[in-house]
Amino acid sequence: MEKWRAADRLLKFSSRFASAVNWNNSCKSKQGKYFYSVATTVHRNPLFSSISPDDISYFKTILGERGVVQDALALDAANTDWMGKYRGSSKLLLQPKNTEEVSQILKYCNSRCLAVVPQGGNTGLVGGSVPVFDEVIINVGLMRNILSFDKVSGVLVCEAGCILENLISFLDDEGFIMPLDLGAKGSCQIGGNVSTNAGGLRLLRYGSLHGSVLGLEAVLANGTVLDMLGTLRKDNTGYDLKHLFIGSEGSLGIVTKVSILTPPKLSSVNIAFLACEDYTSCQKLLLEAKKKLGGILSAFEFLDSDAMSLVLKHLDGVRNPLPPSIHNFYILIETTGSNETFDKENLEAFLLHSVESGLVANGVLAQDINQASSFWHIREGLPEALMKAGAVYKYDLSLPLEKMYDLVEEMRVQIGPAAKVVAYGHLGDGNLHLNISAPAYDDNILAKIEPFVYEWTSKNRGSISAEHGLGLMKAAKIHYSKSPETVRLMIDFDYCVFELLPDTSCLDDNHSIICLCLSA
Amino acid sequence: MEKWRAADRLLKFSSRFASAVNWNNSCKSKQGKYFYSVATTVHRNPLFSSISPDDISYFKTILGERGVVQDALALDAANTDWMGKYRGSSKLLLQPKNTEEVSQILKYCNSRCLAVVPQGGNTGLVGGSVPVFDEVIINVGLMRNILSFDKVSGVLVCEAGCILENLISFLDDEGFIMPLDLGAKGSCQIGGNVSTNAGGLRLLRYGSLHGSVLGLEAVLANGTVLDMLGTLRKDNTGYDLKHLFIGSEGSLGIVTKVSILTPPKLSSVNIAFLACEDYTSCQKLLLEAKKKLGGILSAFEFLDSDAMSLVLKHLDGVRNPLPPSIHNFYILIETTGSNETFDKENLEAFLLHSVESGLVANGVLAQDINQASSFWHIREGLPEALMKAGAVYKYDLSLPLEKMYDLVEEMRVQIGPAAKVVAYGHLGDGNLHLNISAPAYDDNILAKIEPFVYEWTSKNRGSISAEHGLGLMKAAKIHYSKSPETVRLMIDFDYCVFELLPDTSCLDDNHSIICLCLSA
Repeated sequence: MEKWRAADRLLKFSSRFASAVNWNNSCKSKQGKYFYSVATTVHRNPLFSSISPDDISYFKTILGERGVVQDALALDAANTDWMGKYRGSSKLLLQPKNTEEVSQILKYCNSRCLAVVPQGGNTGLVGGSVPVFDEVIINVGLMRNILSFDKVSGVLVCEAGCILENLISFLDDEGFIMPLDLGAKGSCQIGGNVSTNAGGLRLLRYGSLHGSVLGLEAVLANGTVLDMLGTLRKDNTGYDLKHLFIGSEGSLGIVTKVSILTPPKLSSVNIAFLACEDYTSCQKLLLEAKKKLGGILSAFEFLDSDAMSLVLKHLDGVRNPLPPSIHNFYILIETTGSNETFDKENLEAFLLHSVESGLVANGVLAQDINQASSFWHIREGLPEALMKAGAVYKYDLSLPLEKMYDLVEEMRVQIGPAAKVVAYGHLGDGNLHLNISAPAYDDNILAKIEPFVYEWTSKNRGSISAEHGLGLMKAAKIHYSKSPETVRLMIDFDYCVFELLPDTSCLDDNHSIICLCLSA
Repeated sequence: MEKWRAADRLLKFSSRFASAVNWNNSCKSKQGKYFYSVATTVHRNPLFSSISPDDISYFKTILGERGVVQDALALDAANTDWMGKYRGSSKLLLQPKNTEEVSQILKYCNSRCLAVVPQGGNTGLVGGSVPVFDEVIINVGLMRNILSFDKVSGVLVCEAGCILENLISFLDDEGFIMPLDLGAKGSCQIGGNVSTNAGGLRLLRYGSLHGSVLGLEAVLANGTVLDMLGTLRKDNTGYDLKHLFIGSEGSLGIVTKVSILTPPKLSSVNIAFLACEDYTSCQKLLLEAKKKLGGILSAFEFLDSDAMSLVLKHLDGVRNPLPPSIHNFYILIETTGSNETFDKENLEAFLLHSVESGLVANGVLAQDINQASSFWHIREGLPEALMKAGAVYKYDLSLPLEKMYDLVEEMRVQIGPAAKVVAYGHLGDGNLHLNISAPAYDDNILAKIEPFVYEWTSKNRGSISAEHGLGLMKAAKIHYSKSPETVRLMIDFDYCVFELLPDTSCLDDNHSIICLCLSA
């Protein structure tokens, strides 16, 4: 009971935007392909103002004509998330060019009780990067300067709107890499990456952004600029507040600058594709890989036989790398090191030993870049294959490694023959991508999946959102992964930040501005 | 001006314990050897109660006779920090055996307005682990169970009172290591390590505790138990509150359990001792080492010529590893990897290249464990050598790498011939240990050091406490490293946690309990 009360309180944060429209229904009617989780019903908060001509004039004095966008086409794009699932009705998109402009915008919106939503590359998957109703969209995409790079320490300082791929290219020229890499790198922005604590492909090797982000600058809802833009690896002077902004999905403020530790680029990359006959062997192989490949292990991905069959069936040009049969499990191992000869010998010895000890049933080491790409393509092509196969219910979960595949097997029993359960993911990070693939969407199937999948995850101390965040989609489901006391403290902290507002008297217990989510 | 006002507000937190005794004076009169920073004057908060016989009886009902310590000898040890610099006058030491007992103690102290101080191994250096006045000492040393260890994921879950060295031994048997290692490992406890965000010798390789701590359980001042004890590498469901407790020095609550990611133990360790003629070469060497030694680089320590001379003069049995002359700078490089042959060849090739390119003037690779130990002894023996040399003013600073040694040189100009400026530290982490060594303590010397050292550090965006925390010693100096807005938000968060108290009416703006610092 207590649990639910805590969840109710959190819900208020998502429901500060009130409206006559039932968000959930309008969404489902628009397109039915993505309802892998039932969205929360929220109402527009009547305390929020609506945009007036005076507001527009004011914003133009701050940002100039160019920074105040009312064009229907541009607004339509900014109102819609990349899946086409979430859609707002904002009439105003603001494009600040620097922190001072962000601060002026927020200060003004705060004084006028105008709701805002921060936006980065708008590549998020949980309904956090677009308006729910008519919020002012603040897009930081024009803030895209690299401010400094120190080749000795590897510390990069840049503005929040820098596109991840541009940072990767910049660092490549300097002999460094970003500690994170994502499929969305061509569009997503570093401010959004930080705000959503993006995980991605390099987490196994370089850890999460909590480890590599050294500093942040953020603007609170009342316009206060928080300078936490340190560039130091060690700084034990008070609470490390930047961590609250990493993964808070823009709800505490807008990240405007980022300082991040980048590792040197290493020259030698090797990839192996292996087959295991049971999940226990996959786990043991991971343990062995961590021991034997030590510092060079950079990816440990897995897929099951249903995933492999799906890829072979639906993706053009993909061939079974370990013919003729389909094995129960496949593992993709990548190593990244500094010595071509040794790294390859090391991986070869590891593979030989794994085959001899019976952990691995079969395996192959990529002989060139084309073969390496074809192995990665099998793993990375899975979302596309799933879309081609029909309807798909998608879940992004963290689970204790030893229990991860139990969920997949129990889900198969739970669902029966009506749908296929397809599993893959970042095994090295304990991150399962659980997909239920069916010929068509069916409420009976959904009823078998939810809340079962969340309850199972909760019971086994997993996380219902490994790397995507809560957004609008899962805000009310936080209690499955966090204790009521923790959720209450989050809410109190949230109030705490907003109580810095100079004028809260008119706001009841709905804060004047909620920066719902700065999505990648 | 604003800066100072913010600092004043923080001071209130340290001064919640009020007393007739002037802490600073009583401290200085007791011993003069450690006044490397002037302590803050604080007064006992008259709102706090004093211990009554009824309180003692109540605690005995919770903890039994054994858990309620009033013995003078035991109290003297618990009241005094390990340097003998900070000394409280507590009349009561409580030793809970589990989280529930910690919760009951805090709930009761809160209702009775009894001030408390959490204590771990009491090895802290900044006056945070002992009472200032007569606070109830809560020592978690009896909470020393290892709760679980997962050999596949490497996740260790244990109670806060586990001694670091015991965890290291436990993991060694399992083929893993702790991601942190400290000189104080024989006494310090993991709860204290986490609460002070201890840095130590492995940070360069394994990062800070913000990266490796996966979960925490903590008890707030009102007895609320916060279960944040996740064991997942990825969990993006709301604010990651555990980060506030990492490095908050016990001021938000008492850490009772820790979940931590441990890396596999690697078999091959190699150590080189090198000489450089200028600081620029040291920096370039670090960059090269990061590139060429890739994933196996595990330590990059430096000392200057004054440091080497001091060690050779004052430590018995130490010989110059690169005779006959003294070079301007020395670098100790350690690599840790999984392949004996390759790692050694790799380090040898790196050294050869560094000598050929002129970065390194001379160097030697340890041929056996004894030689390796002798190299480490030079670096680790520096604090002892400094103590033997006379009076020493010690500063633990983080600075941008390129400016780090500028401070040392400017300090030499600032101080003149009255004292020697000795520099060493974790160059790979940007952590400088700056020591001013003089024949005897002298207020004229101190006046030349402070506030110069703090102002210089602040001007160059450094940190006045790299790894030791603020404690009582530097609480009022936080503004040198954090912006006024950030400090204000810390204070608001602190209030926020304490506003969870069920009964705050009697407390004015002094919170009922302040868990000042759970030191390692």
